[in-house]
Amino acid sequence: MTAPESERPVARVEVEVRYAETDQMGVVHHANYLVWFELARTRLCALAGCHYAEIERSGYLLMVVGATLRYRAAARYGDRVEVTARLARLASRALTFAYEVRRAGELLATGTTEHLWVEAASRRPTTLPAPLRAPFGALAGRPGGEP
Amino acid sequence: MTAPESERPVARVEVEVRYAETDQMGVVHHANYLVWFELARTRLCALAGCHYAEIERSGYLLMVVGATLRYRAAARYGDRVEVTARLARLASRALTFAYEVRRAGELLATGTTEHLWVEAASRRPTTLPAPLRAPFGALAGRPGGEP
Amino acid sequence: MTAPESERPVARVEVEVRYAETDQMGVVHHANYLVWFELARTRLCALAGCHYAEIERSGYLLMVVGATLRYRAAARYGDRVEVTARLARLASRALTFAYEVRRAGELLATGTTEHLWVEAASRRPTTLPAPLRAPFGALAGRPGGEP
Amino acid sequence: MTAPESERPVARVEVEVRYAETDQMGVVHHANYLVWFELARTRLCALAGCHYAEIERSGYLLMVVGATLRYRAAARYGDRVEVTARLARLASRALTFAYEVRRAGELLATGTTEHLWVEAASRRPTTLPAPLRAPFGALAGRPGGEP
Repeated sequence: MTAPESERPVARVEVEVRYAETDQMGVVHHANYLVWFELARTRLCALAGCHYAEIERSGYLLMVVGATLRYRAAARYGDRVEVTARLARLASRALTFAYEVRRAGELLATGTTEHLWVEAASRRPTTLPAPLRAPFGALAGRPGGEP
Repeated sequence: MTAPESERPVARVEVEVRYAETDQMGVVHHANYLVWFELARTRLCALAGCHYAEIERSGYLLMVVGATLRYRAAARYGDRVEVTARLARLASRALTFAYEVRRAGELLATGTTEHLWVEAASRRPTTLPAPLRAPFGALAGRPGGEP
Repeated sequence: MTAPESERPVARVEVEVRYAETDQMGVVHHANYLVWFELARTRLCALAGCHYAEIERSGYLLMVVGATLRYRAAARYGDRVEVTARLARLASRALTFAYEVRRAGELLATGTTEHLWVEAASRRPTTLPAPLRAPFGALAGRPGGEP
Repeated sequence: MTAPESERPVARVEVEVRYAETDQMGVVHHANYLVWFELARTRLCALAGCHYAEIERSGYLLMVVGATLRYRAAARYGDRVEVTARLARLASRALTFAYEVRRAGELLATGTTEHLWVEAASRRPTTLPAPLRAPFGALAGRPGGEP
Protein backbone atom coordinates (compact mmCIF):
# COMPACT_ATOMS: atom_id res chain seq x y z
CA MET A 1 0.00 0.00 0.00
CA THR A 2 1.44 3.25 -1.11
CA ALA A 3 0.27 6.79 -0.52
CA PRO A 4 -0.43 8.92 -3.59
CA GLU A 5 2.61 10.96 -4.54
CA SER A 6 1.08 14.18 -3.24
CA GLU A 7 0.85 12.78 0.30
CA ARG A 8 4.45 11.59 0.55
CA PRO A 9 7.15 13.40 2.49
CA VAL A 10 8.75 16.27 0.58
CA ALA A 11 12.17 17.74 1.25
CA ARG A 12 12.65 21.47 0.59
CA VAL A 13 16.02 23.14 0.13
CA GLU A 14 16.56 26.84 -0.41
CA VAL A 15 19.38 27.52 -2.85
CA GLU A 16 21.00 30.89 -3.38
CA VAL A 17 22.16 30.99 -6.99
CA ARG A 18 25.95 31.16 -7.21
CA TYR A 19 27.71 33.39 -9.71
CA ALA A 20 29.78 30.38 -10.80
CA GLU A 21 26.53 28.61 -11.71
CA THR A 22 25.68 31.14 -14.41
CA ASP A 23 26.94 30.93 -17.97
CA GLN A 24 27.42 33.56 -20.65
CA MET A 25 23.71 33.40 -21.51
CA GLY A 26 23.26 35.20 -18.19
CA VAL A 27 21.29 32.37 -16.58
CA VAL A 28 22.08 29.28 -14.51
CA HIS A 29 23.76 26.64 -16.69
CA HIS A 30 21.40 23.71 -17.16
CA ALA A 31 23.77 21.09 -15.70
CA ASN A 32 23.55 22.71 -12.26
CA TYR A 33 19.95 21.64 -11.82
CA LEU A 34 21.16 18.05 -11.40
CA VAL A 35 23.40 19.28 -8.58
CA TRP A 36 20.45 21.08 -6.97
CA PHE A 37 18.30 17.95 -7.33
CA GLU A 38 21.04 16.05 -5.48
CA LEU A 39 20.99 18.57 -2.67
CA ALA A 40 17.24 18.10 -2.26
CA ARG A 41 17.61 14.29 -2.49
CA THR A 42 20.20 14.45 0.31
CA ARG A 43 17.72 16.44 2.39
CA LEU A 44 14.97 13.89 1.68
CA CYS A 45 17.15 11.00 2.89
CA ALA A 46 18.05 12.99 6.01
CA LEU A 47 14.33 13.65 6.55
CA ALA A 48 13.77 9.89 6.51
CA GLY A 49 16.42 9.48 9.18
CA CYS A 50 19.31 8.20 7.11
CA HIS A 51 21.78 10.77 5.76
CA TYR A 52 23.16 9.60 2.45
CA ALA A 53 26.71 9.97 3.81
CA GLU A 54 25.81 7.28 6.39
CA ILE A 55 24.25 5.07 3.73
CA GLU A 56 27.56 5.12 1.85
CA ARG A 57 29.52 4.46 5.03
CA SER A 58 27.32 1.41 5.64
CA GLY A 59 28.49 -0.02 2.30
CA TYR A 60 25.77 0.93 -0.16
CA LEU A 61 25.67 3.35 -3.06
CA LEU A 62 22.62 4.82 -4.73
CA MET A 63 23.91 4.87 -8.30
CA VAL A 64 22.29 7.20 -10.83
CA VAL A 65 21.15 5.31 -13.93
CA GLY A 66 18.88 7.87 -15.52
CA ALA A 67 17.73 11.46 -15.39
CA THR A 68 15.21 13.70 -17.10
CA LEU A 69 15.00 17.48 -16.93
CA ARG A 70 12.46 20.02 -18.15
CA TYR A 71 13.41 23.70 -18.08
CA ARG A 72 10.55 26.24 -18.11
CA ALA A 73 12.12 29.50 -16.98
CA ALA A 74 15.67 30.43 -16.11
CA ALA A 75 17.10 30.95 -12.65
CA ARG A 76 19.50 33.88 -12.37
CA TYR A 77 22.28 35.11 -10.12
CA GLY A 78 20.66 36.96 -7.26
CA ASP A 79 17.71 34.54 -7.14
CA ARG A 80 16.84 32.29 -4.26
CA VAL A 81 15.12 29.19 -5.47
CA GLU A 82 13.35 26.38 -3.66
CA VAL A 83 14.16 22.85 -4.73
CA THR A 84 11.88 20.02 -3.63
CA ALA A 85 12.41 16.26 -3.81
CA ARG A 86 10.07 13.37 -3.21
CA LEU A 87 10.20 9.64 -3.85
CA ALA A 88 8.21 8.97 -6.99
CA ARG A 89 8.69 5.21 -7.26
CA LEU A 90 10.17 2.54 -5.00
CA ALA A 91 10.85 -0.97 -6.28
CA SER A 92 13.04 -3.62 -4.68
CA ARG A 93 16.15 -2.70 -6.68
CA ALA A 94 15.39 0.68 -8.19
CA LEU A 95 13.89 3.96 -7.14
CA THR A 96 12.97 7.24 -8.78
CA PHE A 97 12.94 10.71 -7.24
CA ALA A 98 10.99 13.66 -8.62
CA TYR A 99 12.06 17.29 -8.27
CA GLU A 100 10.73 20.80 -8.72
CA VAL A 101 12.59 24.09 -8.75
CA ARG A 102 10.58 27.22 -7.96
CA ARG A 103 11.30 30.92 -7.54
CA ALA A 104 8.71 32.70 -5.46
CA GLY A 105 6.21 30.02 -6.39
CA GLU A 106 6.93 30.13 -10.14
CA LEU A 107 7.91 26.72 -11.50
CA LEU A 108 11.34 26.97 -13.18
CA ALA A 109 12.21 23.34 -13.77
CA THR A 110 11.16 19.79 -13.04
CA GLY A 111 13.02 16.53 -13.27
CA THR A 112 13.50 12.97 -12.18
CA THR A 113 16.49 10.77 -11.37
CA GLU A 114 16.44 7.00 -11.37
CA HIS A 115 18.79 5.01 -9.15
CA LEU A 116 19.90 1.46 -8.43
CA TRP A 117 21.18 0.15 -5.11
CA VAL A 118 24.77 -1.01 -5.46
CA GLU A 119 27.09 -2.74 -2.99
CA ALA A 120 30.02 -0.39 -2.60
CA ALA A 121 32.60 -3.18 -2.33
CA SER A 122 31.57 -5.26 -5.34
CA ARG A 123 29.87 -2.47 -7.31
CA ARG A 124 27.09 -5.01 -7.95
CA PRO A 125 23.38 -4.13 -7.98
CA THR A 126 21.53 -5.30 -4.90
CA THR A 127 18.10 -5.04 -3.32
CA LEU A 128 17.09 -2.25 -0.96
CA PRO A 129 19.30 -2.93 2.11
CA ALA A 130 17.26 -4.22 5.09
CA PRO A 131 18.06 -1.33 7.47
CA LEU A 132 16.82 1.13 4.86
CA ARG A 133 13.45 -0.55 4.23
CA ALA A 134 11.57 1.31 6.92
CA PRO A 135 12.91 4.80 6.15
CA PHE A 136 12.53 4.46 2.37
CA GLY A 137 9.13 2.80 2.81
CA ALA A 138 8.13 5.88 4.78
CA LEU A 139 9.29 8.12 1.93
CA ALA A 140 7.02 6.07 -0.33
CA GLY A 141 4.14 6.74 2.04
CA ARG A 142 3.87 3.16 3.31
CA PRO A 143 2.65 3.03 6.89
CA GLY A 144 4.63 -0.06 7.85
CA GLY A 145 7.51 0.94 5.67
CA GLU A 146 7.81 -2.42 3.87
CA PRO A 147 8.85 -1.98 0.25
CA MET B 1 13.02 15.07 -47.01
CA THR B 2 15.27 13.98 -44.24
CA ALA B 3 18.03 11.38 -44.10
CA PRO B 4 17.64 8.60 -41.52
CA GLU B 5 19.45 9.46 -38.32
CA SER B 6 22.26 7.01 -39.01
CA GLU B 7 23.25 8.89 -42.18
CA ARG B 8 23.41 12.35 -40.66
CA PRO B 9 26.67 14.12 -39.82
CA VAL B 10 28.13 13.11 -36.47
CA ALA B 11 30.53 15.17 -34.38
CA ARG B 12 33.11 13.30 -32.29
CA VAL B 13 34.99 14.80 -29.37
CA GLU B 14 37.63 13.02 -27.32
CA VAL B 15 37.43 13.94 -23.65
CA GLU B 16 40.10 13.18 -21.08
CA VAL B 17 38.34 12.70 -17.75
CA ARG B 18 39.30 15.44 -15.29
CA TYR B 19 39.97 14.68 -11.64
CA ALA B 20 37.57 17.47 -10.70
CA GLU B 21 34.84 15.63 -12.62
CA THR B 22 34.95 12.65 -10.27
CA ASP B 23 33.00 12.42 -7.02
CA GLN B 24 33.55 10.41 -3.87
CA MET B 25 31.95 7.36 -5.51
CA GLY B 26 35.19 7.24 -7.53
CA VAL B 27 33.48 7.86 -10.86
CA VAL B 28 32.54 10.86 -13.00
CA HIS B 29 29.67 12.77 -11.39
CA HIS B 30 26.54 12.36 -13.50
CA ALA B 31 26.03 16.12 -14.08
CA ASN B 32 29.25 16.32 -16.11
CA TYR B 33 27.76 14.30 -18.95
CA LEU B 34 25.58 17.31 -19.82
CA VAL B 35 28.78 19.36 -20.08
CA TRP B 36 30.36 16.74 -22.35
CA PHE B 37 27.20 16.66 -24.49
CA GLU B 38 27.54 20.43 -24.89
CA LEU B 39 31.14 20.04 -26.04
CA ALA B 40 30.03 17.57 -28.73
CA ARG B 41 27.11 19.83 -29.69
CA THR B 42 29.54 22.73 -30.12
CA ARG B 43 31.63 20.53 -32.39
CA LEU B 44 28.58 19.54 -34.41
CA CYS B 45 27.65 23.19 -35.02
CA ALA B 46 31.26 23.91 -36.02
CA LEU B 47 31.12 20.94 -38.39
CA ALA B 48 28.06 22.51 -40.03
CA GLY B 49 30.03 25.69 -40.54
CA CYS B 50 28.58 27.86 -37.77
CA HIS B 51 30.37 27.88 -34.44
CA TYR B 52 27.87 28.37 -31.65
CA ALA B 53 29.88 31.37 -30.39
CA GLU B 54 29.13 33.06 -33.74
CA ILE B 55 25.46 32.11 -33.54
CA GLU B 56 25.24 33.93 -30.21
CA ARG B 57 27.13 36.92 -31.58
CA SER B 58 24.60 37.07 -34.43
CA GLY B 59 21.84 37.55 -31.84
CA TYR B 60 20.38 34.08 -31.34
CA LEU B 61 20.49 31.66 -28.44
CA LEU B 62 19.84 27.94 -28.52
CA MET B 63 18.09 27.62 -25.16
CA VAL B 64 17.95 24.20 -23.49
CA VAL B 65 14.37 23.25 -22.60
CA GLY B 66 14.79 19.56 -21.88
CA ALA B 67 17.32 16.80 -21.36
CA THR B 68 17.35 13.06 -20.82
CA LEU B 69 20.29 10.93 -19.71
CA ARG B 70 20.84 7.19 -19.43
CA TYR B 71 23.93 5.95 -17.58
CA ARG B 72 25.10 2.40 -18.34
CA ALA B 73 28.69 2.25 -17.07
CA ALA B 74 30.82 4.76 -15.24
CA ALA B 75 33.65 6.83 -16.70
CA ARG B 76 36.66 7.20 -14.43
CA TYR B 77 39.65 9.47 -13.95
CA GLY B 78 42.34 8.26 -16.33
CA ASP B 79 39.81 7.35 -19.01
CA ARG B 80 39.58 8.94 -22.41
CA VAL B 81 36.03 8.85 -23.69
CA GLU B 82 34.53 9.66 -27.05
CA VAL B 83 31.39 11.78 -27.08
CA THR B 84 29.30 11.98 -30.23
CA ALA B 85 26.47 14.32 -31.13
CA ARG B 86 24.01 14.33 -33.98
CA LEU B 87 20.84 16.19 -34.79
CA ALA B 88 17.94 13.91 -33.94
CA ARG B 89 15.03 16.22 -34.81
CA LEU B 90 14.73 19.58 -36.53
CA ALA B 91 11.47 21.54 -36.46
CA SER B 92 10.94 25.20 -37.27
CA ARG B 93 11.26 26.36 -33.65
CA ALA B 94 12.76 23.42 -31.80
CA LEU B 95 15.50 20.89 -32.29
CA THR B 96 16.79 17.83 -30.47
CA PHE B 97 20.33 16.51 -30.33
CA ALA B 98 21.26 12.92 -29.44
CA TYR B 99 24.52 11.90 -27.76
CA GLU B 100 26.58 8.83 -26.97
CA VAL B 101 29.56 8.47 -24.66
CA ARG B 102 31.89 5.55 -25.29
CA ARG B 103 35.16 4.27 -23.83
CA ALA B 104 37.08 2.07 -26.23
CA GLY B 105 33.84 1.27 -28.02
CA GLU B 106 31.88 0.42 -24.84
CA LEU B 107 28.73 2.51 -24.50
CA LEU B 108 28.81 4.38 -21.18
CA ALA B 109 25.91 6.78 -21.55
CA THR B 110 23.35 8.16 -23.97
CA GLY B 111 21.21 11.25 -23.86
CA THR B 112 19.28 13.93 -25.63
CA THR B 113 18.85 17.65 -25.25
CA GLU B 114 15.97 19.67 -26.63
CA HIS B 115 16.36 23.33 -27.55
CA LEU B 116 14.39 26.33 -28.67
CA TRP B 117 15.67 29.22 -30.78
CA VAL B 118 15.52 32.44 -28.82
CA GLU B 119 16.26 36.03 -29.85
CA ALA B 120 19.03 37.16 -27.54
CA ALA B 121 17.72 40.72 -27.21
CA SER B 122 14.09 39.97 -26.39
CA ARG B 123 14.60 36.46 -24.98
CA ARG B 124 11.57 35.47 -27.07
CA PRO B 125 11.29 32.16 -28.94
CA THR B 126 11.73 32.48 -32.67
CA THR B 127 11.98 30.28 -35.75
CA LEU B 128 15.26 28.87 -37.04
CA PRO B 129 17.10 32.02 -38.21
CA ALA B 130 17.36 32.22 -42.00
CA PRO B 131 21.19 32.16 -42.23
CA LEU B 132 21.20 28.94 -40.19
CA ARG B 133 18.68 27.05 -42.32
CA ALA B 134 21.21 25.59 -44.73
CA PRO B 135 23.76 24.45 -42.13
CA PHE B 136 21.15 22.98 -39.76
CA GLY B 137 19.29 21.44 -42.66
CA ALA B 138 22.54 19.73 -43.60
CA LEU B 139 22.87 18.38 -40.05
CA ALA B 140 19.37 16.94 -40.48
CA GLY B 141 20.51 15.25 -43.67
CA ARG B 142 18.47 17.46 -45.98
CA PRO B 143 20.17 17.94 -49.34
CA GLY B 144 18.83 21.44 -49.93
CA GLY B 145 19.01 22.30 -46.27
CA GLU B 146 15.46 23.70 -46.06
CA PRO B 147 13.92 22.96 -42.65
CA MET C 1 41.08 56.44 8.27
CA THR C 2 40.45 52.77 8.19
CA ALA C 3 39.37 50.37 10.92
CA PRO C 4 41.68 47.43 11.68
CA GLU C 5 40.62 44.37 9.73
CA SER C 6 39.17 42.69 12.82
CA GLU C 7 36.64 45.49 13.29
CA ARG C 8 35.31 45.54 9.74
CA PRO C 9 31.97 44.04 8.71
CA VAL C 10 32.09 40.30 8.12
CA ALA C 11 29.66 38.30 6.00
CA ARG C 12 28.90 34.74 7.07
CA VAL C 13 27.41 32.09 4.81
CA GLU C 14 26.54 28.57 5.83
CA VAL C 15 27.28 26.06 3.08
CA GLU C 16 26.04 22.48 3.03
CA VAL C 17 28.65 20.44 1.17
CA ARG C 18 27.23 19.08 -2.08
CA TYR C 19 27.98 15.55 -3.25
CA ALA C 20 28.99 16.98 -6.63
CA GLU C 21 31.64 19.07 -4.86
CA THR C 22 33.54 15.99 -3.70
CA ASP C 23 36.16 14.21 -5.77
CA GLN C 24 37.47 10.66 -5.70
CA MET C 25 39.78 11.53 -2.80
CA GLY C 26 36.55 11.63 -0.76
CA VAL C 27 36.83 15.32 0.08
CA VAL C 28 35.67 18.60 -1.44
CA HIS C 29 37.65 19.36 -4.59
CA HIS C 30 39.92 22.34 -3.99
CA ALA C 31 38.48 24.48 -6.82
CA ASN C 32 35.12 24.70 -5.04
CA TYR C 33 36.55 26.89 -2.29
CA LEU C 34 36.77 29.74 -4.83
CA VAL C 35 33.05 29.25 -5.48
CA TRP C 36 32.32 29.35 -1.75
CA PHE C 37 34.45 32.49 -1.39
CA GLU C 38 32.33 34.09 -4.09
CA LEU C 39 29.15 33.20 -2.22
CA ALA C 40 30.49 34.93 0.91
CA ARG C 41 31.69 37.92 -1.16
CA THR C 42 28.18 38.24 -2.62
CA ARG C 43 26.81 38.26 0.92
CA LEU C 44 29.31 40.91 1.99
CA CYS C 45 28.25 43.22 -0.84
CA ALA C 46 24.58 42.64 0.06
CA LEU C 47 25.45 43.45 3.68
CA ALA C 48 26.87 46.77 2.48
CA GLY C 49 23.60 47.48 0.72
CA CYS C 50 24.58 46.78 -2.87
CA HIS C 51 23.94 43.27 -4.21
CA TYR C 52 26.58 42.37 -6.75
CA ALA C 53 23.83 41.58 -9.29
CA GLU C 54 22.80 45.25 -9.05
CA ILE C 55 26.39 46.43 -9.37
CA GLU C 56 26.64 44.55 -12.67
CA ARG C 57 23.30 45.92 -13.84
CA SER C 58 24.59 49.42 -13.12
CA GLY C 59 27.42 48.81 -15.61
CA TYR C 60 30.39 47.76 -13.50
CA LEU C 61 32.19 44.45 -13.06
CA LEU C 62 34.43 43.39 -10.23
CA MET C 63 36.95 41.41 -12.22
CA VAL C 64 39.09 38.82 -10.44
CA VAL C 65 42.79 39.39 -11.09
CA GLY C 66 44.33 37.21 -8.41
CA ALA C 67 43.60 34.57 -5.80
CA THR C 68 45.43 32.70 -3.07
CA LEU C 69 44.22 29.65 -1.18
CA ARG C 70 45.53 27.74 1.81
CA TYR C 71 43.98 24.36 2.65
CA ARG C 72 44.41 23.07 6.21
CA ALA C 73 41.81 20.36 6.60
CA ALA C 74 39.33 18.87 4.18
CA ALA C 75 35.60 19.51 4.07
CA ARG C 76 33.48 16.44 3.35
CA TYR C 77 30.05 15.55 2.08
CA GLY C 78 27.66 15.76 5.04
CA ASP C 79 29.52 18.74 6.52
CA ARG C 80 28.07 22.17 7.01
CA VAL C 81 30.78 24.79 6.82
CA GLU C 82 30.78 28.49 7.55
CA VAL C 83 32.46 30.77 5.04
CA THR C 84 33.29 34.33 6.01
CA ALA C 85 34.36 37.26 3.85
CA ARG C 86 35.67 40.66 4.73
CA LEU C 87 37.30 43.48 2.81
CA ALA C 88 41.04 43.28 3.42
CA ARG C 89 42.18 46.18 1.27
CA LEU C 90 40.45 48.99 -0.59
CA ALA C 91 42.32 51.18 -3.07
CA SER C 92 40.85 53.46 -5.70
CA ARG C 93 41.02 50.88 -8.48
CA ALA C 94 41.61 47.58 -6.72
CA LEU C 95 40.33 45.72 -3.71
CA THR C 96 41.14 42.52 -1.89
CA PHE C 97 38.78 40.27 0.05
CA ALA C 98 39.88 37.76 2.69
CA TYR C 99 38.04 34.52 3.47
CA GLU C 100 37.91 31.78 6.04
CA VAL C 101 36.17 28.41 5.90
CA ARG C 102 35.37 26.73 9.21
CA ARG C 103 33.59 23.57 10.33
CA ALA C 104 32.32 23.75 13.90
CA GLY C 105 34.97 26.37 14.61
CA GLU C 106 37.87 24.40 13.07
CA LEU C 107 39.66 26.40 10.38
CA LEU C 108 39.61 24.40 7.12
CA ALA C 109 40.87 26.94 4.62
CA THR C 110 41.76 30.58 4.13
CA GLY C 111 42.19 32.67 1.04
CA THR C 112 42.11 36.01 -0.69
CA THR C 113 40.86 37.33 -4.00
CA GLU C 114 42.01 40.52 -5.63
CA HIS C 115 39.76 42.48 -7.96
CA LEU C 116 39.74 45.44 -10.31
CA TRP C 117 36.75 47.63 -11.14
CA VAL C 118 35.93 47.36 -14.83
CA GLU C 119 33.36 49.21 -16.95
CA ALA C 120 31.11 46.51 -18.36
CA ALA C 121 30.66 48.20 -21.73
CA SER C 122 34.30 48.93 -22.53
CA ARG C 123 35.89 46.21 -20.35
CA ARG C 124 38.33 48.93 -19.24
CA PRO C 125 39.60 49.30 -15.67
CA THR C 126 38.08 52.19 -13.81
CA THR C 127 38.04 53.72 -10.33
CA LEU C 128 35.58 52.71 -7.61
CA PRO C 129 32.24 53.98 -9.04
CA ALA C 130 30.91 56.98 -7.10
CA PRO C 131 27.64 55.37 -5.91
CA LEU C 132 29.66 52.51 -4.41
CA ARG C 133 32.10 54.66 -2.42
CA ALA C 134 29.99 54.85 0.70
CA PRO C 135 29.05 51.15 0.91
CA PHE C 136 32.57 49.91 0.12
CA GLY C 137 34.08 52.52 2.41
CA ALA C 138 31.86 51.10 5.15
CA LEU C 139 33.16 47.60 4.41
CA ALA C 140 36.66 49.01 4.88
CA GLY C 141 35.60 50.36 8.26
CA ARG C 142 35.67 54.02 7.22
CA PRO C 143 33.11 56.06 9.11
CA GLY C 144 32.41 58.49 6.29
CA GLY C 145 32.84 55.81 3.71
CA GLU C 146 35.25 57.78 1.49
CA PRO C 147 37.87 55.49 -0.09
CA MET D 1 71.58 18.98 -8.23
CA THR D 2 68.58 20.48 -9.90
CA ALA D 3 68.15 21.90 -13.38
CA PRO D 4 66.93 25.49 -13.65
CA GLU D 5 63.19 25.63 -14.00
CA SER D 6 63.37 26.54 -17.67
CA GLU D 7 65.15 23.28 -18.50
CA ARG D 8 62.73 20.96 -16.74
CA PRO D 9 60.12 18.84 -18.52
CA VAL D 10 56.94 20.74 -19.38
CA ALA D 11 53.56 19.19 -20.02
CA ARG D 12 51.27 20.92 -22.51
CA VAL D 13 47.52 20.37 -22.72
CA GLU D 14 45.22 21.97 -25.25
CA VAL D 15 41.87 22.88 -23.75
CA GLU D 16 38.79 23.85 -25.74
CA VAL D 17 36.80 26.26 -23.57
CA ARG D 18 33.46 24.74 -22.57
CA TYR D 19 30.26 26.78 -22.55
CA ALA D 20 29.62 25.57 -19.00
CA GLU D 21 32.95 27.11 -17.97
CA THR D 22 31.77 30.63 -18.78
CA ASP D 23 29.85 32.84 -16.37
CA GLN D 24 27.52 35.77 -16.92
CA MET D 25 30.49 38.11 -17.31
CA GLY D 26 30.95 36.32 -20.65
CA VAL D 27 34.34 34.86 -19.77
CA VAL D 28 35.66 31.66 -18.19
CA HIS D 29 34.86 31.64 -14.47
CA HIS D 30 38.07 31.98 -12.49
CA ALA D 31 37.66 28.71 -10.54
CA ASN D 32 38.03 26.67 -13.73
CA TYR D 33 41.68 27.58 -14.07
CA LEU D 34 42.42 25.30 -11.09
CA VAL D 35 40.72 22.48 -13.01
CA TRP D 36 42.81 23.23 -16.10
CA PHE D 37 45.97 23.30 -13.96
CA GLU D 38 45.04 19.84 -12.69
CA LEU D 39 44.65 18.58 -16.24
CA ALA D 40 48.17 19.80 -17.08
CA ARG D 41 49.53 18.36 -13.80
CA THR D 42 48.01 14.98 -14.73
CA ARG D 43 49.76 15.21 -18.09
CA LEU D 44 53.07 16.07 -16.41
CA CYS D 45 52.87 13.00 -14.15
CA ALA D 46 52.02 10.85 -17.19
CA LEU D 47 55.02 12.38 -18.99
CA ALA D 48 57.21 11.24 -16.08
CA GLY D 49 55.88 7.72 -16.50
CA CYS D 50 53.43 7.57 -13.59
CA HIS D 51 49.82 8.48 -14.28
CA TYR D 52 48.30 10.05 -11.20
CA ALA D 53 45.48 7.47 -11.29
CA GLU D 54 48.17 4.78 -10.75
CA ILE D 55 49.79 6.79 -7.96
CA GLU D 56 46.45 6.79 -6.11
CA ARG D 57 45.94 3.09 -6.76
CA SER D 58 49.38 2.44 -5.23
CA GLY D 59 48.14 4.05 -2.00
CA TYR D 60 49.36 7.65 -2.15
CA LEU D 61 47.56 10.94 -2.57
CA LEU D 62 49.02 14.25 -3.67
CA MET D 63 46.95 16.52 -1.45
CA VAL D 64 46.61 20.19 -2.40
CA VAL D 65 47.61 22.48 0.46
CA GLY D 66 47.93 25.78 -1.33
CA ALA D 67 47.28 27.56 -4.60
CA THR D 68 47.93 30.95 -6.15
CA LEU D 69 46.42 32.35 -9.33
CA ARG D 70 47.07 35.45 -11.40
CA TYR D 71 44.59 36.40 -14.12
CA ARG D 72 45.84 38.70 -16.90
CA ALA D 73 43.32 38.30 -19.71
CA ALA D 74 40.11 36.34 -19.97
CA ALA D 75 39.58 33.10 -21.86
CA ARG D 76 36.27 32.88 -23.71
CA TYR D 77 33.96 30.27 -25.16
CA GLY D 78 35.26 29.43 -28.62
CA ASP D 79 38.90 29.77 -27.52
CA ARG D 80 41.43 27.00 -27.51
CA VAL D 81 44.00 27.59 -24.81
CA GLU D 82 47.27 25.88 -24.01
CA VAL D 83 47.94 25.02 -20.38
CA THR D 84 51.45 24.09 -19.30
CA ALA D 85 52.69 22.56 -16.06
CA ARG D 86 56.14 22.05 -14.68
CA LEU D 87 57.56 21.08 -11.32
CA ALA D 88 58.73 24.26 -9.61
CA ARG D 89 59.96 22.81 -6.33
CA LEU D 90 60.55 19.31 -5.00
CA ALA D 91 61.22 18.67 -1.31
CA SER D 92 61.02 15.37 0.54
CA ARG D 93 57.43 15.90 1.71
CA ALA D 94 56.13 18.75 -0.42
CA LEU D 95 56.17 19.85 -4.01
CA THR D 96 55.02 22.84 -6.02
CA PHE D 97 53.86 22.95 -9.61
CA ALA D 98 53.80 26.08 -11.77
CA TYR D 99 51.32 26.69 -14.59
CA GLU D 100 50.72 29.00 -17.52
CA VAL D 101 47.61 29.43 -19.64
CA ARG D 102 48.08 30.92 -23.11
CA ARG D 103 45.87 31.66 -26.10
CA ALA D 104 47.81 31.86 -29.35
CA GLY D 105 50.91 32.75 -27.36
CA GLU D 106 49.25 35.46 -25.25
CA LEU D 107 49.61 34.79 -21.53
CA LEU D 108 46.15 34.65 -19.93
CA ALA D 109 46.94 33.33 -16.46
CA THR D 110 49.66 31.88 -14.28
CA GLY D 111 49.52 29.97 -11.05
CA THR D 112 51.03 27.51 -8.64
CA THR D 113 49.74 24.65 -6.53
CA GLU D 114 51.50 23.23 -3.52
CA HIS D 115 51.01 19.62 -2.47
CA LEU D 116 51.89 17.17 0.27
CA TRP D 117 52.30 13.43 -0.10
CA VAL D 118 49.69 11.61 1.97
CA GLU D 119 49.18 7.90 2.65
CA ALA D 120 45.71 7.13 1.33
CA ALA D 121 44.87 4.66 4.11
CA SER D 122 45.89 6.77 7.11
CA ARG D 123 45.54 10.20 5.48
CA ARG D 124 48.87 11.02 7.13
CA PRO D 125 51.61 13.07 5.44
CA THR D 126 54.54 11.01 4.25
CA THR D 127 57.75 11.44 2.28
CA LEU D 128 57.95 11.07 -1.50
CA PRO D 129 57.22 7.34 -2.00
CA ALA D 130 60.33 5.41 -3.10
CA PRO D 131 58.98 4.22 -6.48
CA LEU D 132 58.20 7.82 -7.38
CA ARG D 133 61.64 9.24 -6.60
CA ALA D 134 63.11 8.63 -10.03
CA PRO D 135 60.17 9.98 -12.06
CA PHE D 136 59.64 13.05 -9.87
CA GLY D 137 63.39 13.63 -9.67
CA ALA D 138 63.36 13.68 -13.47
CA LEU D 139 60.58 16.29 -13.43
CA ALA D 140 62.83 18.37 -11.18
CA GLY D 141 65.62 18.03 -13.73
CA ARG D 142 67.79 15.77 -11.56
CA PRO D 143 69.83 13.39 -13.68
CA GLY D 144 69.82 10.56 -11.15
CA GLY D 145 66.32 11.42 -10.00
CA GLU D 146 67.11 11.44 -6.25
CA PRO D 147 65.06 14.05 -4.41
